[in-house]
Amino acid sequence: MKDNHVIGIMGPGKGATRQDTETAFELGKLLAENHFLVLTGGRASGVMDAAMHGAKSAGGTTIGILPSAGGECQSKYADIVIKTGMGSARNNINVLSSDVVVVVGIGPGTTSEISLAIKADKPLILLGQTKESEAFFRSFNYQKLLFCSSSNEALTRIKSLLK
Amino acid sequence: MKDNHVIGIMGPGKGATRQDTETAFELGKLLAENHFLVLTGGRASGVMDAAMHGAKSAGGTTIGILPSAGGECQSKYADIVIKTGMGSARNNINVLSSDVVVVVGIGPGTTSEISLAIKADKPLILLGQTKESEAFFRSFNYQKLLFCSSSNEALTRIKSLLK
Amino acid sequence: MKDNHVIGIMGPGKGATRQDTETAFELGKLLAENHFLVLTGGRASGVMDAAMHGAKSAGGTTIGILPSAGGECQSKYADIVIKTGMGSARNNINVLSSDVVVVVGIGPGTTSEISLAIKADKPLILLGQTKESEAFFRSFNYQKLLFCSSSNEALTRIKSLLK
Amino acid sequence: MKDNHVIGIMGPGKGATRQDTETAFELGKLLAENHFLVLTGGRASGVMDAAMHGAKSAGGTTIGILPSAGGECQSKYADIVIKTGMGSARNNINVLSSDVVVVVGIGPGTTSEISLAIKADKPLILLGQTKESEAFFRSFNYQKLLFCSSSNEALTRIKSLLK
Repeated sequence: MKDNHVIGIMGPGKGATRQDTETAFELGKLLAENHFLVLTGGRASGVMDAAMHGAKSAGGTTIGILPSAGGECQSKYADIVIKTGMGSARNNINVLSSDVVVVVGIGPGTTSEISLAIKADKPLILLGQTKESEAFFRSFNYQKLLFCSSSNEALTRIKSLLK
Repeated sequence: MKDNHVIGIMGPGKGATRQDTETAFELGKLLAENHFLVLTGGRASGVMDAAMHGAKSAGGTTIGILPSAGGECQSKYADIVIKTGMGSARNNINVLSSDVVVVVGIGPGTTSEISLAIKADKPLILLGQTKESEAFFRSFNYQKLLFCSSSNEALTRIKSLLK
Repeated sequence: MKDNHVIGIMGPGKGATRQDTETAFELGKLLAENHFLVLTGGRASGVMDAAMHGAKSAGGTTIGILPSAGGECQSKYADIVIKTGMGSARNNINVLSSDVVVVVGIGPGTTSEISLAIKADKPLILLGQTKESEAFFRSFNYQKLLFCSSSNEALTRIKSLLK
Repeated sequence: MKDNHVIGIMGPGKGATRQDTETAFELGKLLAENHFLVLTGGRASGVMDAAMHGAKSAGGTTIGILPSAGGECQSKYADIVIKTGMGSARNNINVLSSDVVVVVGIGPGTTSEISLAIKADKPLILLGQTKESEAFFRSFNYQKLLFCSSSNEALTRIKSLLK
């Protein structure tokens, strides 16, 4: 497990669309099938929950970094649960602990994770973006930013980035 | 001082434009003249430095929340210096400690502060935005978000929000 | 204010003894009279509250670093209030932001602040210790640790450390 | 893995004695044999490194919560590596994320973890304490504190606590 790369899957909780959670589930599954560890914000909601559900459906290992101190709102699909007790400040830990950050969908918390990933100079893959979010994040001219249109394309990019 | 409201002025460091730092200086000065405390990310760079410089030019009091543990890169215009030692995770503290968050300009760190301000349900005023950032942040339909075109307009809005 | 040193006064909240809060009040007052800024954990309880009360009684300026995100349990004697939203992890910020750490009394949270001050290599002055705590902290052989028996002695030591 | 309890093993890094690291290795091994997850501060030093080495020698799974942002000083025995970028403030995460906190040996960082475990109301087992540290921590009258004299005794206590 130690030699397996950690892929962070970030995205909205209750603001996730059905398309977002379907993509997150598929991506989590594909990553687990390819022996990646799947890291999320750990809550039983939206993209986080779906990505870990997908990874577990393929027998993968999942890591959830919770904002709460006591395990509140924890996804049942998180194997390793880190309780930070520091609210949204934990978003920086999600990003720092991922070898590649993949984002599915958009919302305020997700936006903070995208921007912290840029600050931390992490490879960053965006899926399921709106016209506005795509235009906005392109405007930073960040060299390690890629847009993908499917979880399969994201997997191919991740493999290429980490080989 | 205890009864004075804290206004956070957030914005890019080295990525700040000349217009950004001029606006930040003016806004810091206006806020100090009106007995607000000015809080920033504390570094000797860009919008943070200019906002606190402006506040000090009017005899105000400034608070800088540094990412570093030892005071590295500290602005000389910060009166009260908080050393967090937690890097970009300190952005959440900047936002939580402000009664109103005002943003001048845009960049990745600034984006995280805007999005954390939305997560924290803080009144949020944006100045000096690009076409892309304005369109993006409007897309959240966040009720407490205002766009202003001058530091004077921002001051009027802040007074109205806090009265 | 910018050139004034920050003295952190740490100690128990509800576990504080009457002697602890009396010493904390006196020390806060003495420090304010000598133009130091007084920093505490910010809550309306025990040593924190008493130290800031003392500082305010002499017209000083106080800084409170709260564990809460929304200002819960805030002392009315805190001028500058920093809301961290990170619970006891904020103890490290208390220590990093102080030029000298002074401890009055003992308890679990206070113990974490003493030990984090040693980790951060800060000058550290202990007052009002038990036989057990004095023996324990002496056993680290930490060179910057002093024991004092009164707030006046602590003031003399602080002046000497910072001149 | 999801249903396996997380046992935090805390203790000094370079200040660890040979006895400390031997005990930590044994305890890590015993815990792994009994299907516990072993969580530590993640660095390649002292008790942290030895505990994860022991766990890996028995085929266990280990979690390391690093103070650094970039993986500096990471133990090669850590399977899951969490990069916090928040220095000693990460000690609170170590404690919050553990179902039981076991401490081997003593030092300033370790002291902060013991005291944060008490603040967080966690079951706490101390091994390899000095006369001074034992007397000090007993003086808190913390109901969930146990002293053990061997890793086998600690294992028995942990099983009893978690059944």
